[in-house]
Amino acid sequence: MAQYNLKKHIENARDKKAELVIKNARVVNVFTEEIEEGDVGIADGLILGIGDYDAARVIDAKGAYLCPGLIDAHLHIESSVAHPSRFCDAVLEKGTTTLICDPHEMANVCGARGIRYMLRETEDVPLNAYFMIPSCVPCTSFETSGFKLYARDMEEFLSHPRVLGLGEVMDSVAVVNCEETMLEKLALFEGGCMDGHAPLLGGDRLNAYVTAGPRTDHECGEYWEIKEKLGKGMYILLRLGSVCRGMDGIFRRIAEEKLPTRRLCFCTDDKHMEDIRVEGHMNYILRRAVSNGIDPIHAVQMATINSAEAHRLERIGAVSPGYKADLVLFDNLKDFNVLSVIVGGKPFVRGAEHSLQRMEGIYDSVRLAPRAPDCLQLRVNGKTPVLNAVDNELLTHLTMEEVPSKDGLFTPTGDLLKLALLERHHASGRIGLGIMRGFRIHNGAVASTVGHDSHNLVVAGDNDADMLKAVDLLEECGGGYVVVSGGVALAKLPLPIAGLMSDLSLNEMEERLRQLLDALRGIGEWSGESDPFIWLSFISLPVLPNVRLTDLGVFDVTKMQFVGKGDA
Amino acid sequence: MAQYNLKKHIENARDKKAELVIKNARVVNVFTEEIEEGDVGIADGLILGIGDYDAARVIDAKGAYLCPGLIDAHLHIESSVAHPSRFCDAVLEKGTTTLICDPHEMANVCGARGIRYMLRETEDVPLNAYFMIPSCVPCTSFETSGFKLYARDMEEFLSHPRVLGLGEVMDSVAVVNCEETMLEKLALFEGGCMDGHAPLLGGDRLNAYVTAGPRTDHECGEYWEIKEKLGKGMYILLRLGSVCRGMDGIFRRIAEEKLPTRRLCFCTDDKHMEDIRVEGHMNYILRRAVSNGIDPIHAVQMATINSAEAHRLERIGAVSPGYKADLVLFDNLKDFNVLSVIVGGKPFVRGAEHSLQRMEGIYDSVRLAPRAPDCLQLRVNGKTPVLNAVDNELLTHLTMEEVPSKDGLFTPTGDLLKLALLERHHASGRIGLGIMRGFRIHNGAVASTVGHDSHNLVVAGDNDADMLKAVDLLEECGGGYVVVSGGVALAKLPLPIAGLMSDLSLNEMEERLRQLLDALRGIGEWSGESDPFIWLSFISLPVLPNVRLTDLGVFDVTKMQFVGKGDA
Repeated sequence: MAQYNLKKHIENARDKKAELVIKNARVVNVFTEEIEEGDVGIADGLILGIGDYDAARVIDAKGAYLCPGLIDAHLHIESSVAHPSRFCDAVLEKGTTTLICDPHEMANVCGARGIRYMLRETEDVPLNAYFMIPSCVPCTSFETSGFKLYARDMEEFLSHPRVLGLGEVMDSVAVVNCEETMLEKLALFEGGCMDGHAPLLGGDRLNAYVTAGPRTDHECGEYWEIKEKLGKGMYILLRLGSVCRGMDGIFRRIAEEKLPTRRLCFCTDDKHMEDIRVEGHMNYILRRAVSNGIDPIHAVQMATINSAEAHRLERIGAVSPGYKADLVLFDNLKDFNVLSVIVGGKPFVRGAEHSLQRMEGIYDSVRLAPRAPDCLQLRVNGKTPVLNAVDNELLTHLTMEEVPSKDGLFTPTGDLLKLALLERHHASGRIGLGIMRGFRIHNGAVASTVGHDSHNLVVAGDNDADMLKAVDLLEECGGGYVVVSGGVALAKLPLPIAGLMSDLSLNEMEERLRQLLDALRGIGEWSGESDPFIWLSFISLPVLPNVRLTDLGVFDVTKMQFVGKGDA
Repeated sequence: MAQYNLKKHIENARDKKAELVIKNARVVNVFTEEIEEGDVGIADGLILGIGDYDAARVIDAKGAYLCPGLIDAHLHIESSVAHPSRFCDAVLEKGTTTLICDPHEMANVCGARGIRYMLRETEDVPLNAYFMIPSCVPCTSFETSGFKLYARDMEEFLSHPRVLGLGEVMDSVAVVNCEETMLEKLALFEGGCMDGHAPLLGGDRLNAYVTAGPRTDHECGEYWEIKEKLGKGMYILLRLGSVCRGMDGIFRRIAEEKLPTRRLCFCTDDKHMEDIRVEGHMNYILRRAVSNGIDPIHAVQMATINSAEAHRLERIGAVSPGYKADLVLFDNLKDFNVLSVIVGGKPFVRGAEHSLQRMEGIYDSVRLAPRAPDCLQLRVNGKTPVLNAVDNELLTHLTMEEVPSKDGLFTPTGDLLKLALLERHHASGRIGLGIMRGFRIHNGAVASTVGHDSHNLVVAGDNDADMLKAVDLLEECGGGYVVVSGGVALAKLPLPIAGLMSDLSLNEMEERLRQLLDALRGIGEWSGESDPFIWLSFISLPVLPNVRLTDLGVFDVTKMQFVGKGDA
């Protein structure tokens, strides 16, 4: 079969047997870094060459720029809250034809089954969906996830044709300290691809970390970090998603200092569907990079061949004979507006039907213990920890304050909300309680089952009754987002897929998200531009500075210890 | 074990447990393209990092330039006529620490056994000897090799840890025409590394060729060829060995046109021991590249990390934590004189003892039929083909001439020598006879069992008696080089290893080679700077323009047909 295909492909190229031709294109050659003019012949999913071609089907590029299909070098589809097949549609429309997915969120909720689900649900998508196997499930021991993933649980994925290696190795401490269960995972994937995740790691500890295996990093927030990690052989995945947005200065610095770009790539990491649909996906990063002075062809390399090399993908990422015919036609190399997308040799057409499959253990992920009416009561005594939000940041600050109380129980005010984190995987009944300042809710509550990285149920509000109602509603629908006031749901988006993803169409999903934000604006207010649902989804991640709330209590990330167990 | 090593390596880097330190080096960082100053710590064969290190063993670089050990991206060790272990010593001294070997010559003489021999004899060498499995044995059907190698013969090598893929795919016609036995080989190595060899191939046929798999080419003699092949996704291995020397113009053009260098590499292909010892190895190419305007750091990349990427070698080719501690210290980045070499974390010391192993089928490769005294008689009648040498070139020209004869038999003169090619693998008794012009021999003969690519026995002389004596002598010693005059051997270098390589020490070998040239000068003369032994070793390769002599007769390469069967 391999030989039969080989023969056909060789003959197609030799005899110019094109099925589809793109005429009059300006082709970006990522190898010579030049623009070539000519027709691109395509057959059997492969590029035949650039020259004079004829075929039954012709696309006239009218002088537009033809680039290799774009590669997102690292992302979590789950962060879009869309089903994987619909996510693929949305990004294809923006010219992205290859994804390096890390199903870290699904694995935290559903374990190996969650990874299997993501692989299965991307089996028939038109784009190339590759996977890295999550290395840090759970992310830390300071919260309770649905599953723990050990090396032995990962073995089944080693031989999967779309699995490339080990997903972002977040627990750099475990690596550098040679913790046994981490070494087992690193040894299992030895010699394979390994993504890193090591914010601010440098010096000897970074030397130890790269020695252990990880060869990419997408957490560089500072230029010196890029410089050091690049210099130590890492591929740097420059990230521009919904959450981390400060890339302009870094792009400018790269351009000004003429940093060699061959080991620089682009990724989104986490990007919400609305942002993808409004501003774009990898094409948006291209636009921003070029507007900040990066050479357009270097930028295209960073979105294509560089990422292919970083993940050892062959015959992807260039407009070249024998390469997969994944192509995107842009209006120009400044705005990167997508005129047309070819994937696997076929023009992409939006609006395909998807038949979603219900898989056991995926649609029933919310498992809560019965709740007593007083389960959210927070007893306070003297100075109490408060989580303070910062406008437009995921950062929080910890303060110790005297807070309003009655009979020794915290009473929320307009300024101070109650925050609860309910363990939702094992029906343990464990609830972490805290107090937050940063957005206001009057007579209501907001709740979500998306809560990085363990995805417990987070609820914030100014009264226990609405908070408990919100929890009830999410339990009923298998997880999601909800806004409640006066005992009534004002808006709701069910996320029945592990409590993380919707099974609605993109348009329905967006309508519901809009309703949720409108409802929340009706009963509350917040400054800055952060989306409160996204902000809430990170309040439980005990690696983000400076203070977090998990099901085990209020956690001081700077000291790596709990400062309040909730009910003191 | 993997895990144990991993732990040790992580701890070494983290805790700076260096065994060896190189102090005061200017380190060439191939990732950032900058020079870093600092100490390089080394332990357990790996680089720990660049910083402040101390160790029991210290090398003071005194400000010299520390580069990654150099990589020869494509070579045939056999062309040096030295035993592999001694070859490794010689190139290590020049800073080469990684070889991508193609044992094409051994395979032509000894088949799979020859490949096994080369793998075994490089098992304990200090440098990294990787292998590509020869794809074209024999090279063509116009000569008789010792063995034919089919896909089924290659399977045993697929899992060898030092085998990287399929060796230079020379028979581009078979590829483009989809010949079955070629497709079988390509399919066997599908997805693996494949070296190409496609001089002057372009356009649709090149598209077909790269689609088939080969992803490197070392045959580019023209800049346009480099441009086209690079643009079609090939890595270009710029070759500077003993035979093909015209690289200066290409280096200048690359520098002038600022051609992106990330997919350009260096290789020697064929380089003789004397040339290696006198001018250098990869360090000589570096010197020539830089003297022709290539940026020194780009040149170092071309000799290191680029080649590693081309052949998917991980953790080789950079001075970076976790990388193999293969390092070379140069006086400067212009002359590239080697001050010191570290390989696998240990300083290289010349003069190691090698215990060579005799392997059955390797030391008894010369199998000739008994020869009658008249077996070299060449009957001529009218215009007869003559092979004309060109000074300093492997190129030959074909002329049809009336030649001196007596009783219908060619009689050599000072100007015209008799040339004979004796099939030496199967004792078939087949002899190709021809006439050559280009160097003179008076009263003598010169013979060799090195004859690309089938390595039959070639002998040239002005009288049959000395020619036959030379053949007898080479038969006796299992192959080699010999100069005979008046029935006596004036000088001889036995090459008992497949008739291709010596088992003498490098110094003894060179002494013999010098004696051979002196002896030949005593009885003959030639213009130009070509070594007559090397020139003779290519006279039988029926893919080099314009005319060759094989055991099947005089072959017109331009017409791809025989023009004289010898005894007409």
